[in-house]
Amino acid sequence: MGVFEFKVVSSSPECAGRLGVLRTPHGVVETPAFMPVGTQASVKTMTPDELHALGAKIILSNTYHLYLRPGAELIQQAGGLHTFMNWEGPILTDSGGYQVFSLAKLRSISEEGVEFRSHLDGSRHFLTPEKVVAVQEALGSDIAMVLDECPPYPCTPQYAADSMARTTRWAIRCREASRRQDQVLFPIVQGGVYRELRQQHAEEIAALDFPGIAIGGLSVGEPKDIMYQVLTWLQPYLPSAKPRYLMGVGAPEDLFNGVARGIDMFDCVLPTRLARHGQVLTTDGPLTIRNAAYARDFTPMDSECTCPVCRNYTRAYIRHLFKAGEILGMRLTTTHNLHFILTLMARIRDSLRTGSFMQYQTEFFQRYQGERNASGTCRT
Amino acid sequence: MGVFEFKVVSSSPECAGRLGVLRTPHGVVETPAFMPVGTQASVKTMTPDELHALGAKIILSNTYHLYLRPGAELIQQAGGLHTFMNWEGPILTDSGGYQVFSLAKLRSISEEGVEFRSHLDGSRHFLTPEKVVAVQEALGSDIAMVLDECPPYPCTPQYAADSMARTTRWAIRCREASRRQDQVLFPIVQGGVYRELRQQHAEEIAALDFPGIAIGGLSVGEPKDIMYQVLTWLQPYLPSAKPRYLMGVGAPEDLFNGVARGIDMFDCVLPTRLARHGQVLTTDGPLTIRNAAYARDFTPMDSECTCPVCRNYTRAYIRHLFKAGEILGMRLTTTHNLHFILTLMARIRDSLRTGSFMQYQTEFFQRYQGERNASGTCRT
Repeated sequence: MGVFEFKVVSSSPECAGRLGVLRTPHGVVETPAFMPVGTQASVKTMTPDELHALGAKIILSNTYHLYLRPGAELIQQAGGLHTFMNWEGPILTDSGGYQVFSLAKLRSISEEGVEFRSHLDGSRHFLTPEKVVAVQEALGSDIAMVLDECPPYPCTPQYAADSMARTTRWAIRCREASRRQDQVLFPIVQGGVYRELRQQHAEEIAALDFPGIAIGGLSVGEPKDIMYQVLTWLQPYLPSAKPRYLMGVGAPEDLFNGVARGIDMFDCVLPTRLARHGQVLTTDGPLTIRNAAYARDFTPMDSECTCPVCRNYTRAYIRHLFKAGEILGMRLTTTHNLHFILTLMARIRDSLRTGSFMQYQTEFFQRYQGERNASGTCRT
Repeated sequence: MGVFEFKVVSSSPECAGRLGVLRTPHGVVETPAFMPVGTQASVKTMTPDELHALGAKIILSNTYHLYLRPGAELIQQAGGLHTFMNWEGPILTDSGGYQVFSLAKLRSISEEGVEFRSHLDGSRHFLTPEKVVAVQEALGSDIAMVLDECPPYPCTPQYAADSMARTTRWAIRCREASRRQDQVLFPIVQGGVYRELRQQHAEEIAALDFPGIAIGGLSVGEPKDIMYQVLTWLQPYLPSAKPRYLMGVGAPEDLFNGVARGIDMFDCVLPTRLARHGQVLTTDGPLTIRNAAYARDFTPMDSECTCPVCRNYTRAYIRHLFKAGEILGMRLTTTHNLHFILTLMARIRDSLRTGSFMQYQTEFFQRYQGERNASGTCRT
């Protein structure tokens, strides 16, 4: 595991937040980190160069989508996902499990794995723990995820308990199937919104001693307070020397709440998806760029922003691009929203470094009004 | 007219082609030049920085579209079109006349002007020569075009003759309405595909002594040979000291044929529109990137191309982006196609400089097979 390393650099005296450094075969990532999502081997509308310029150090890509199209074997033949998409930095791939449950049709789950029909063409597929490892090894991501079952919200304690037990057994099978020396596997803690189940599963998963640990099954429709509560319950049960990844979560308020509870890694389609719908993240909260109020507003989207879009383009122009259906509009809002989230994450790291995390959080929310617009679910 | 100047630097000993320099209030353009089209104040998918990096020196924008949305008065309030869209170089705007005839509904033409209904919302509008000048002055383009009637192909000699006579009268009214000192007006030669009409109209228009001259009514459905024939007929009748702009034309074969007949300026949506449909211009001619043949083709779109896309991305990846509906695909093909056309134009200028235009044309077409894929009409 020499190519992969995680170190906690410092811990906040104010909360469970910590600064860390994650070494991967494709580069070093300062944590806590936000991972932009490149579902289909592309962070929508963006080039890898642009992501790099915005300060993105690691991206996420979705195994389910790539497995169906263009196929993992094709990407392997291209030299792996990094080469295929021209992103030289670290990549984390999920296992595809979440999308099987959220996107695919006619799925049926058994101890062996999960059968489903493609949302693209209805073709039948069977994913097992061994198969998702093989697929992710073909993709060649730096961090791969085990196959898990993400139970719906709400679900009964019995369903959550059965599901998490299977997720543990699948994690073990994934590890046994793993062959690549330049890729690590993270297991996933499930357990719904039940304190005992979550803590029991965190202990079970931690005992398996994988090089990192992920928290799944959150941001699936439950209120934000419940998500934060689950993170609070889990915090003492997560191994402190391992990177902790909160899957599919990344609204501004979630970054603060997650970091305060010891989370090191986040991913979320929120900033990019909002952007394509003309929702712009600003210091004062999201704004809807199509609103008539901005028709003759010749100020930047966010007057305090230093991104290349806010330096060069006005609300009026970007509104025009959206009204006219011009792709450039989505490019500009995506660039800005990713800059907003990546800069926020960088400032959170700075605040952890200087012991002012809680102060920064207070200052941020004196301006930012997010909850009213924040989407509960922000996964692909 | 001190802010606007055109000089012929040298003339080809082989053909009517010439090298020139066009000075405008927003910068200098070497001619012959290709103008990418930014219909709605955006060259589709591209930022102005990217256009600049590709070597674009002047762009075209469409008055009809901007007049309807967001409106010329709004753009004027923004500080003009250059500021609004963040393009610092020269801009040529058309008069909107062509789009009224090709896009708008229920149009009716009279000596006074043309009435039509918007293709966007059915609203009624009336454009006169005076109005299109006022609109273009509000936009603040460097070069504005007079209102003309572009007759369909085919049309009778009588229709073509009546139409071109009105176009002359409208050109005079446009000049009388013109107020801005930092904008020049180009009149338009019409006359259908009739030699006598074309030559008569060229003489009429040339006698008006505008600072440039445009050729309209070509690439509207007639065979390419006829278009080239018309240009040959016109060539001796066009004032040699003025820039000559062939409107809406710009396929590779048209650039060679136009330059050889003394054309200095071209615009065409072809490279950008083809790109968005996955048609890629290469040294060997257009290729359809969606073709199954490219699924595992890990070579660049054009192995002889030096553009940033061909240096970093494969056919297989770009095909995947198109199949998956990813916007990045259109960005990459647009970047490449514009690089292809702008580089071709730069090489044509080089060949004029070194007296090897005909040789370059022969070499180019030994490889490039374009006609079979070239679109006859390539205007907005």
